[in-house]
Amino acid sequence: MANPIDFYFDFSSPYGYFASAKIDDLAAKYVRGVNWHPILLGAVFKMNGQQPLPGIPLKGSYAKHDMMRSARWFGLPFKIPTRFPIGAIAPCRAFYWVRDKDAALARKLAGALYHAYFVEDRDISNPEVTLNVAAKQGVDREALAQGLNDVALKERVKNEVDAAIERGVFGSPYIVVDGEPFWGSDRFDQLEKWLSTGNW
Amino acid sequence: MANPIDFYFDFSSPYGYFASAKIDDLAAKYVRGVNWHPILLGAVFKMNGQQPLPGIPLKGSYAKHDMMRSARWFGLPFKIPTRFPIGAIAPCRAFYWVRDKDAALARKLAGALYHAYFVEDRDISNPEVTLNVAAKQGVDREALAQGLNDVALKERVKNEVDAAIERGVFGSPYIVVDGEPFWGSDRFDQLEKWLSTGNW
Repeated sequence: MANPIDFYFDFSSPYGYFASAKIDDLAAKYVRGVNWHPILLGAVFKMNGQQPLPGIPLKGSYAKHDMMRSARWFGLPFKIPTRFPIGAIAPCRAFYWVRDKDAALARKLAGALYHAYFVEDRDISNPEVTLNVAAKQGVDREALAQGLNDVALKERVKNEVDAAIERGVFGSPYIVVDGEPFWGSDRFDQLEKWLSTGNW
Repeated sequence: MANPIDFYFDFSSPYGYFASAKIDDLAAKYVRGVNWHPILLGAVFKMNGQQPLPGIPLKGSYAKHDMMRSARWFGLPFKIPTRFPIGAIAPCRAFYWVRDKDAALARKLAGALYHAYFVEDRDISNPEVTLNVAAKQGVDREALAQGLNDVALKERVKNEVDAAIERGVFGSPYIVVDGEPFWGSDRFDQLEKWLSTGNW
């Protein structure tokens, strides 16, 4: 079987959400697996002197318009959350805590967290909300609540983010297939051509 | 006939070049004209605290890779110019000087300037190069050389850029159809859906 696709995303990123709804089906079509890597873009943005899109003059108001139109384009339910963007530390930690025990459950949890944030307008940066979402997916709420404060888990997430930056990841979604990088949910056409031809 | 499409671009922008090769055919398919508006993004970038793509860590090296891959995707000849990016003041002024006399010739000149910069690697920010390109298209070289230094033309270009910013333009290409904005050569699929359905 061919190498799995590396899928990097931030839980605060609408375009990451759009990609998350499409990536598994696209990969399956070309007999590939997907490794899901939630990351925290705050560190990258600081390094690059970038601001989150919504705060930039002109670009910010266009971005909100583009997010809503792109959701319709992809046929996905979406609303811009009341609190947006967020630092998605709790959901990111929860994902890796679960993944170390059950990768399939972590994948389900990622989908549920994105749905909670971008469809139900629940503030998943609040650890209580993340815990509620996880519990609904069958995760042990008490054990996860303890785990979220574990120093080793914090270190683990920091290492995941550092490894992503080391690899060149600077946005969400950021997808790597056999070393070839694709940034943005608007590169799915080029990504699919790559998957279908091996190179071009 | 329906309203023409407004097409904003910077002569220093690879994605503007890609869009410039596609926009007239797309518009014609939906019985629309195109108003070409070269602009200078330097003023917008300064206002937004943005840097040109190539200078941004991580993003810059990805951007160069993406430009080359996107050129192949669109089936266009392309190389990253030796001097890149540039302040495209001379080509921008030359365009408006010609357009006031002959809109069709200005359209041809825009294509020739993009070709000189992104295919032939000629530095069109040098007024002599812009004059040579224009002369090849049948523009009166001496008259244009005088015109480029005309205070009224400088003011005219400044007003065009200000009007674009006023309208919300912050990148290249930036396309407006019946009030609906589309930023990027990667929004042509959404743009075409808009043109074909009127709204969605």
